[in-house]
Amino acid sequence: MTVDTAEVEARLALARALARDAGAVALSYLNARESLVVESKANPQDVVSVADRRVEEALRARIAEAHPADGVLGEEYGLSEGTSGFTWVLDPIDGTSPFVNGMPSWCVSIAVLAGDEPVVGVIYAPCTDELYAAGKGQGATLNDAPVKVASGRSLRDGVVGLGANHHVPPAEFAGVVERLLGMGGNFVRNGSGALMLAYVAAGRLVGYYEPYMHAWDCLAGYCLVAEAGGALLPFPVADGALTRGAPVMAATPDVVADLRRIAGLPQLA
Amino acid sequence: MTVDTAEVEARLALARALARDAGAVALSYLNARESLVVESKANPQDVVSVADRRVEEALRARIAEAHPADGVLGEEYGLSEGTSGFTWVLDPIDGTSPFVNGMPSWCVSIAVLAGDEPVVGVIYAPCTDELYAAGKGQGATLNDAPVKVASGRSLRDGVVGLGANHHVPPAEFAGVVERLLGMGGNFVRNGSGALMLAYVAAGRLVGYYEPYMHAWDCLAGYCLVAEAGGALLPFPVADGALTRGAPVMAATPDVVADLRRIAGLPQLA
Repeated sequence: MTVDTAEVEARLALARALARDAGAVALSYLNARESLVVESKANPQDVVSVADRRVEEALRARIAEAHPADGVLGEEYGLSEGTSGFTWVLDPIDGTSPFVNGMPSWCVSIAVLAGDEPVVGVIYAPCTDELYAAGKGQGATLNDAPVKVASGRSLRDGVVGLGANHHVPPAEFAGVVERLLGMGGNFVRNGSGALMLAYVAAGRLVGYYEPYMHAWDCLAGYCLVAEAGGALLPFPVADGALTRGAPVMAATPDVVADLRRIAGLPQLA
Repeated sequence: MTVDTAEVEARLALARALARDAGAVALSYLNARESLVVESKANPQDVVSVADRRVEEALRARIAEAHPADGVLGEEYGLSEGTSGFTWVLDPIDGTSPFVNGMPSWCVSIAVLAGDEPVVGVIYAPCTDELYAAGKGQGATLNDAPVKVASGRSLRDGVVGLGANHHVPPAEFAGVVERLLGMGGNFVRNGSGALMLAYVAAGRLVGYYEPYMHAWDCLAGYCLVAEAGGALLPFPVADGALTRGAPVMAATPDVVADLRRIAGLPQLA
């Protein structure tokens, strides 16, 4: 679709505000986690589920107020189709495992698609107060300072982020780890794919690979990495990946060939 | 050796103050990283090396002033033997890979041994302003609030920390990953073994395993985990591990058997 710059800018500004507010609400649940567990006799997983739903409800209400014709896809409440051509893609808390265990590596992830293309990507990590934001054609920023993907770094002197979940057979993921280490690479896995994609955009990681991710985990990161100059494995929104998920890879131009080899993907022509 | 409680308390208080000060200095290097690289035409690895050395020099000076008869072992300057029976074990920046790449998961790690036993463990993570501290017989704290290892959590509903370095063959580490995922477990690897050990003490991780670690990477974490109620693979200080390194495992009593199986260690009798 033809995209009006002012329409993108309005949604980027809203996404930035929403991410900070949602992060503050999620953080308040995190800090009250122990007393909530005791009070409600719930387990910690229930607390994160409640936080996830409350945050997504608040996000949906504010989006509906500002842009009532936009569609919304969220991890918790699925897809509400719109008529404007814009679709918000929300992960209220990406990294529920770090969150529920009290680790800082979780974030709020908000993307906006124009048609099938991510044109806004905002990721906010409350525990370190880092806001990553990108709008199509406007570059990517971290706390308002421009960022770019790493350059001049090989697989051997950079760090790659890896992710996996129960959709991926253990032997497949272990093979990725073995190939990466065997090629002299190094990796982190912090429990939040969205945050690791933001790290690629900010030049902290030279790449990220996960054999299977949902749209709400990766589309904000994809917009950030694209605007920061990185290469991406296409996420086939038009072919149903929006609700079904797909493999995800982001890399600097310098390491994309190595990372494809590690992931067992054919080289690009 | 027989340990005087007041001697331990004095060193714990100093270690807490030193860790915060060292963290602030390291953070100033991190924040000035880009301009330092540009000014000095150095690469980022040189900047972290300078920061590491400056921080260790400052720590050694203040320890010598307060406890001139204590020994000091540091990652950067090796072992200076003392006569008091106390030995400080310092890692000025644990997690140099996250540090040099601008990620928040690095820390200052300070242990004090009485003879061969860690009696003080302090770990400070500047980017999240978290100070973990333990003294023998006094329990463990995070920002002054008491912490304990997780309880009632199995391998399947907790998260394990993993570490490795170039001393460990890729296939061996990949085997650990495959066994852990195959048993229904989940893992993080944030690039700082000391910080992940502190997470075990704070109940955020149910265990940590790394096939080979140096004393300065693990002894503060070992004191924290012991004081928080966790189980530890003995680190054979008396048999030369202080300067040579050894395998490291920390776990809650609930997962120690599973984690030994994952690591390929024999079960305890």
